Amino acid sequence: MPHGKARRLLVRCAQRIPVTKPLDASLPTAPGAASAPRRLFRFEGGNAGPWTVRHMQVCKGEALPLVDRLAVHSEPVPWGSAGAWTLRGITSNERYVERVERSALVERQEGLGRPGSTHAALIPIRKTAAWWALTQDERRNVFEAQSRHIAIGMDYLPAIARRLHHCRDLGADEPFDFLTWFEYAPEDEKSFDALLRALRASPEWAYVDREIDIRLQLSSM
Amino acid sequence: MPHGKARRLLVRCAQRIPVTKPLDASLPTAPGAASAPRRLFRFEGGNAGPWTVRHMQVCKGEALPLVDRLAVHSEPVPWGSAGAWTLRGITSNERYVERVERSALVERQEGLGRPGSTHAALIPIRKTAAWWALTQDERRNVFEAQSRHIAIGMDYLPAIARRLHHCRDLGADEPFDFLTWFEYAPEDEKSFDALLRALRASPEWAYVDREIDIRLQLSSM
Repeated sequence: MPHGKARRLLVRCAQRIPVTKPLDASLPTAPGAASAPRRLFRFEGGNAGPWTVRHMQVCKGEALPLVDRLAVHSEPVPWGSAGAWTLRGITSNERYVERVERSALVERQEGLGRPGSTHAALIPIRKTAAWWALTQDERRNVFEAQSRHIAIGMDYLPAIARRLHHCRDLGADEPFDFLTWFEYAPEDEKSFDALLRALRASPEWAYVDREIDIRLQLSSM
Repeated sequence: MPHGKARRLLVRCAQRIPVTKPLDASLPTAPGAASAPRRLFRFEGGNAGPWTVRHMQVCKGEALPLVDRLAVHSEPVPWGSAGAWTLRGITSNERYVERVERSALVERQEGLGRPGSTHAALIPIRKTAAWWALTQDERRNVFEAQSRHIAIGMDYLPAIARRLHHCRDLGADEPFDFLTWFEYAPEDEKSFDALLRALRASPEWAYVDREIDIRLQLSSM
């Protein structure tokens, strides 16, 4: 395209762009964005926070330094670590759950923060490059047809409440792909162990190359 | 669980954690991570960079300030904007493509940076909350069964090369959900326009609430 024509197009299109107010591409512009649920969470291991670390088990791959306490923050608390380590994750759209499955989950599940849920677990997981190289249908096949990930989780509802945080697309250097946070009553810990045994024995877990199981107990605050 | 038992577990599990070297949760630990392809990209609109902006068209939603030039950086260039605006995105695993589709795409597509590809387009898009609230099967149904997104793109291979960057899970305040970068020869611009017309007329585009079409030309460097 000759330069002159390009210049005319630039001028023509410039007229379509309103310049009556300052524009900032870094600000959210969706209506109601200010009241949207918080998505970004920070898990800070150290010597502060309401959660006492009961034990940390390295299931696969490199460890995390052992800590005594864990604090969970959501935005707008600024980043920056005061502890031995900080993991961060973001809640996002579901990647595998289908409509009939979601309806069944929503019917049975309960939220975080129940008064009886004084036990919790934070389980950071990383999956292999081979997992991420699979196509969507292949991943869904391993996840549910082969591993029954959703069906197994359903068996432990509503006792075990959970929130999944994604890390992989927060940046190029994240140490984990997922952080899952679980809450339950002390008497449900055996059930929780059974849930984890079932998942870890599934074909999906052949694609896990780093996993740490951090068990927590709510301290009197 | 009594406190004494918790303490014993803490000690027992601590023994499993190697402490022979410093651990840093913020560093990548995957073997070969250093040679992994770069995933994080920054698109900087301003008055510098090899790409001359031919025109910017606001298709839907709020505009971006008009600029003359665009620079594309990949990590490890540090963040920080020197231009009028900076958009960032990360390449990731495919969300909808299935195995047979990927095989067909791989067979036909060509890479970025071809000598004849002196034209490019950057198209930032944001989708509605309604889109993100759909389940995986519902999104796939709109994306391909109803909208033929993959099939339409296939019709324009290998002329139109592309790279998709995800933004939505980079943080909670990203102004767009996707940045797609296209490259093609000047004589293929009519084809590119036809490709965009077909996609924009599809049911999927009812879920797009912000879209800007930025057309570029490689300047002599």
